[in-house]
Amino acid sequence: MNKSDTKKLKNFYESLKREKESFIGYPVNTSFDYSELFEFLSIPLNNVGDPFSSSYYGLDSREFEREVLNWFAKLHNAPLDNYWGYVTNGGTEGNLYGLYLARELYPKGVVYYSQDTHYSVSKNIRVLNMENVMIKSRRNGEMDYQDFKDMLSSWRSAPPIIFANVGTTMREAFDSVSEIKKVLKELAIPEYYIHVDAALGGMTLPFIEGSPKFDFTTGVQSMSISGHKFIGSPMPCGVVLALKSNVGRVSRAVEYVGSLDSTISGSRNGFTPILLWYAIKRYGFNGFKKVVRQCVRTAEKAVRKFNEAGIKAWKNDHSITVIFPRPSYKISKKWKLAVQDDIAHIICMPQVDDKTIDSIIKDILEDEPKKIFG
Amino acid sequence: MNKSDTKKLKNFYESLKREKESFIGYPVNTSFDYSELFEFLSIPLNNVGDPFSSSYYGLDSREFEREVLNWFAKLHNAPLDNYWGYVTNGGTEGNLYGLYLARELYPKGVVYYSQDTHYSVSKNIRVLNMENVMIKSRRNGEMDYQDFKDMLSSWRSAPPIIFANVGTTMREAFDSVSEIKKVLKELAIPEYYIHVDAALGGMTLPFIEGSPKFDFTTGVQSMSISGHKFIGSPMPCGVVLALKSNVGRVSRAVEYVGSLDSTISGSRNGFTPILLWYAIKRYGFNGFKKVVRQCVRTAEKAVRKFNEAGIKAWKNDHSITVIFPRPSYKISKKWKLAVQDDIAHIICMPQVDDKTIDSIIKDILEDEPKKIFG
Repeated sequence: MNKSDTKKLKNFYESLKREKESFIGYPVNTSFDYSELFEFLSIPLNNVGDPFSSSYYGLDSREFEREVLNWFAKLHNAPLDNYWGYVTNGGTEGNLYGLYLARELYPKGVVYYSQDTHYSVSKNIRVLNMENVMIKSRRNGEMDYQDFKDMLSSWRSAPPIIFANVGTTMREAFDSVSEIKKVLKELAIPEYYIHVDAALGGMTLPFIEGSPKFDFTTGVQSMSISGHKFIGSPMPCGVVLALKSNVGRVSRAVEYVGSLDSTISGSRNGFTPILLWYAIKRYGFNGFKKVVRQCVRTAEKAVRKFNEAGIKAWKNDHSITVIFPRPSYKISKKWKLAVQDDIAHIICMPQVDDKTIDSIIKDILEDEPKKIFG
Repeated sequence: MNKSDTKKLKNFYESLKREKESFIGYPVNTSFDYSELFEFLSIPLNNVGDPFSSSYYGLDSREFEREVLNWFAKLHNAPLDNYWGYVTNGGTEGNLYGLYLARELYPKGVVYYSQDTHYSVSKNIRVLNMENVMIKSRRNGEMDYQDFKDMLSSWRSAPPIIFANVGTTMREAFDSVSEIKKVLKELAIPEYYIHVDAALGGMTLPFIEGSPKFDFTTGVQSMSISGHKFIGSPMPCGVVLALKSNVGRVSRAVEYVGSLDSTISGSRNGFTPILLWYAIKRYGFNGFKKVVRQCVRTAEKAVRKFNEAGIKAWKNDHSITVIFPRPSYKISKKWKLAVQDDIAHIICMPQVDDKTIDSIIKDILEDEPKKIFG
């Protein structure tokens, strides 16, 4: 590599370090340190195929992956003798897998998902070539159960596949599994499938007392949880969990790697399972509980501070996402805020503290005092 | 983390280091050193969305990704003003993307692929819910063009989507784009799509004089190339290239990340583009050419040595894969050999040298002298 390339890399790293300081708009924990694991990056790790079988490939971290899966399975009350899953490349793959499984079980099924659902889901549905119906959202971002009921009534012949958000991308609203099941019961629908996109909520709600239940005992059949969101990771990753009894229909034995190939990706990242394992060992249930509690507290405080400053902000119960009126492009760009229509949000991830909240409020007030107070 | 966990990690690393020494059965380069890039692993990089547009997210390596794509586009003669692509999580995603694109262009299209095609492809086709026909293979692993012609004749009403291997997984055979096009011409088929799975060949054939052509000037419309194979990487990654004019139909604008979302994965690894960039800067065209040449030479020598030892071995022209009779489980396990039916192979990646070849020949002879000598 020549000098100018080396310099380019160096400058890039420095600019990323600076940018990281104002990172409050995405559900991404930036407070992590995995340097103890870097030596594994000298190995071409590959968890190709099913994490629960062995492989000829040899250079894999399946053992760590299984421990990670087991931890998540316990966290979400999956039946320990009847669950299956794997560490994915991120939420999209987990959701794609859940919907794929649902389609294999119910080839004529129709996917129901709210209009606040992450954009990647409609892409997933298109890739899978599935019938689908978009359901209206309530103002807080949650699925409108009345609209769900109306839609379901008119399509009653096809098994419904419900894609529930825990929570939604912009407002961190939680679609209620119990409300969804109530509707299914009221309409006497015998066969259905519920997949939960718990990208963020899968690592926050289990640690918050009194939060809505969406675990495997509630009738949920698969779940996707992100690893790079609440836990934090230098690259996207996640976990997908599903009922093992459902998975059999999708699998096919593949002699080439001496393994049952039931994952969406063939070759799979073997570094991220070690990374998740490391985070779990380091924090444990109680450690995560403490961090989540702090995040909720920061979010509650932020809502108060915004409103005291005259900026209308609010949040859903048990969420760590603060919603407020969309500021100028300048502010969105500086603070890397995700925006949609007339709103923006701050997600109170572990790196967000009171000082950060104060700074952004100050920036907004200085930028558009008229708009806010006008 | 407690002491036993730390010890577990340490032991795991040591065992991987040992295992790496006998790694000759998979098309994976183990000779890499990316330690200069480890500092980037303190940043939650995410190249979410289209690499050619900008994003609010901020912590991305799109600039490096575009340089990587451009390098591959030039290597494969893609039209520089009409190509699109992204760095994928590996070959499966690149092939899924190519087939998805083909399906969007030809919803009634039928996929043709040879029986020697990688197992992940039939899974891709199932995920995409596409009609498909498996074509017989010749003994060397290449598509049987006569069988292709016969099949195509009886399905002539549906646009063919040809999935070509460069090369196949077990025998590293190269499906010939010119033979495929000859058949299409003979049957007067006006509309078709050719996707090339160039997982390994996409980084070897362009550096070998006289090798079969499969670049974008030959009529190929998309191509998937692995990054963790010939280049080498601690985690699976790859590049997918396609004609930009075709891609428009799949894209959808997504305000959430301020980017056009046309990739299969939503959140995307931002570390692997830097890693590929680094390798390209370090080796360059001439550097890779030298390494490829050495690999071909090792493979040719290996065939000779195997045969001299009485073990029937052979290889396809321009390939670096040596095929020989399947040895015992003990040998397959020790050398991490990929096996299928009655054959096994060694892939002469950069880390494989004459000494390694001698060792495995010795092991085979000691293990089953009777079988080998009849």
